Amino acid sequence: MRLEPDDLRDLALGAAFLGTGGGGDPYIGRLMVEQAMREGHTVDIIDLGSVPDDALVIPTAMMGAPTLIVEKLPSGEETIASLRKLEAYLGRKAYATMPIKVGGINSTMPLVVGARLGLPVVDADGMGRAFPELQMETFAVYGVPGAPMVMSNEYGDSALIETADNKMLEWLARGVTIRMGGTSFIAEYAMDGATAKRTSVPGTLSLAILIGACMRRTRREHADPFAALLALLPKTPYAFGKIIFKGKIADLFRETTQGFAKGRVRIAGLDGWNGTMEIDIQNENLVARHDGEIKAIVPDLICVLDSETAEPITTEMLRYGQRVTVMGVAVPPIMRTPEALAVFGPGGFGIDAPFTPIETLG
Amino acid sequence: MRLEPDDLRDLALGAAFLGTGGGGDPYIGRLMVEQAMREGHTVDIIDLGSVPDDALVIPTAMMGAPTLIVEKLPSGEETIASLRKLEAYLGRKAYATMPIKVGGINSTMPLVVGARLGLPVVDADGMGRAFPELQMETFAVYGVPGAPMVMSNEYGDSALIETADNKMLEWLARGVTIRMGGTSFIAEYAMDGATAKRTSVPGTLSLAILIGACMRRTRREHADPFAALLALLPKTPYAFGKIIFKGKIADLFRETTQGFAKGRVRIAGLDGWNGTMEIDIQNENLVARHDGEIKAIVPDLICVLDSETAEPITTEMLRYGQRVTVMGVAVPPIMRTPEALAVFGPGGFGIDAPFTPIETLG
Repeated sequence: MRLEPDDLRDLALGAAFLGTGGGGDPYIGRLMVEQAMREGHTVDIIDLGSVPDDALVIPTAMMGAPTLIVEKLPSGEETIASLRKLEAYLGRKAYATMPIKVGGINSTMPLVVGARLGLPVVDADGMGRAFPELQMETFAVYGVPGAPMVMSNEYGDSALIETADNKMLEWLARGVTIRMGGTSFIAEYAMDGATAKRTSVPGTLSLAILIGACMRRTRREHADPFAALLALLPKTPYAFGKIIFKGKIADLFRETTQGFAKGRVRIAGLDGWNGTMEIDIQNENLVARHDGEIKAIVPDLICVLDSETAEPITTEMLRYGQRVTVMGVAVPPIMRTPEALAVFGPGGFGIDAPFTPIETLG
Repeated sequence: MRLEPDDLRDLALGAAFLGTGGGGDPYIGRLMVEQAMREGHTVDIIDLGSVPDDALVIPTAMMGAPTLIVEKLPSGEETIASLRKLEAYLGRKAYATMPIKVGGINSTMPLVVGARLGLPVVDADGMGRAFPELQMETFAVYGVPGAPMVMSNEYGDSALIETADNKMLEWLARGVTIRMGGTSFIAEYAMDGATAKRTSVPGTLSLAILIGACMRRTRREHADPFAALLALLPKTPYAFGKIIFKGKIADLFRETTQGFAKGRVRIAGLDGWNGTMEIDIQNENLVARHDGEIKAIVPDLICVLDSETAEPITTEMLRYGQRVTVMGVAVPPIMRTPEALAVFGPGGFGIDAPFTPIETLG
């Protein structure tokens, strides 16, 4: 499928929804792809199933704290440099690129690479949402080594990292990212088509477009975007969603530390919702508690949406006094296996609570 | 010249002298080379002048805070891995390896590589002493790019860094070194023979052996090692030396911060020396002040020696109450040009004083 400018707008909106507060503002990535389109480039999204088993897929992304990404607009050439260096190291050309993270700006970074290099972009990713660390990818969960990985910055500096340990990869790459100024542009988890089919969350780019289109349509028709979203989800692999709170932001704590944006937001109930919801943040919304009781927990999605427009609000855009609606969404089964939960379940973030599917939470 | 075990002992002693308190204890490196020799390997030191102009020289070293190096004995395979990966990247085999730093343990690290791979080791280096940062090399001063650089640790993790900026190289590599646990093993400043001849401090490995042999001979003959050293120096490119203080260590402050061992030592005069000498340390001894008046300043050598044996004392081995003799030594002209002083003169360490040659200091 060839991406149209309208799809791109929908994708950015849906990717922000799947970002669950993190992953950076896809708006910036959208501007980068639109620029490439204006220069005559096209973006082709291909089905995961259509990738030949022996074809090389090189996922691309940016790495860093979302609060910094907002301040520093990348050109796209940094990510291309990383992909080219990884190709040179592997001695093979990429058949396609792919997002590692559909949530947030990293849904669009591979589109910039795909547009400028004429590479198709696989409709799948390695997170099915946004997570703050490189090893928190289904690729890693199901045995794909993240290294060799190449990271570049806007000055042409680069690092190619090799390690057998995906957590060490995250640790070293995070260190380089911090020293590159807080963001870097990466190519990692190179794999063949067969491996991509086994380890990716499929169809997430088109899902993001669907979600964004649903929001845009209801907005145009002055319909209820929340009801429309809740009706859409059961037709997708993210088969369950519900509103878990409505209220006004009453308190907000955020800091950028060790390359992560950490914090907590407190929402006071409105519109018939009593009490308080507290959401813990590490780049993304990780756990939502209503008067102390867990209502949704990672890896399920916790989406903080503008109560008026249903527009997703990234954690760096949260402001005191905003009226928000919090939606919880079930993630697909590939993200809820014991192996997956061991990496990006609550314990992966130091949260002392078991994962409980949102369908079963009161 | 084929290195004999006796040469190795002398080299370790002389390299500690040239380390001016830093560069790590060469004793550890000596043990590593001796182990290789026991396994039947040999080490050949070759003259800088004998290297063909178009031959590839790849310097090797370890990177990190000397206080950490003491705690963690490397195997040598880490450095070999870095050299091999740099060769693979460049698509060329090395003709020889070379120290980047004759002062301290890095005089011996290339010998381990040379022994185990059967590569000759060039009798020259890029510092003529020890310095704490990668860009503080005559190679860099005279225009050689440090990158591509490969760094490895004992777990097989590695990073290949590319940048046009040698200070950025230091910044990124230091970050990776810290995240690798405080030390890494590196190959960098790959260059051809012609460039090595233009930018190296020549003859420094054999100079270290000469200095060590001088100390060992005087010790055996119960002669005065200080007088012997002061008589030897004028026959070398380090043509001037003098005793600038004698005393007892009265106070000592050290901390490992940002990957560097920083500190200050205060010595109370003895044996006819009055007042106090204070020496500022950043891995190496940087500036020596006698009652506030500068007596020697970087890049000239400030060697803190045991008053009894003339044994060099590395900054991490300084102890309260030690009786020490401080010797200042002039470095060769290639290390005192305006270009060289701009990089590793006093200003390079944030010292607000001009470089003054030790010959002209009172």
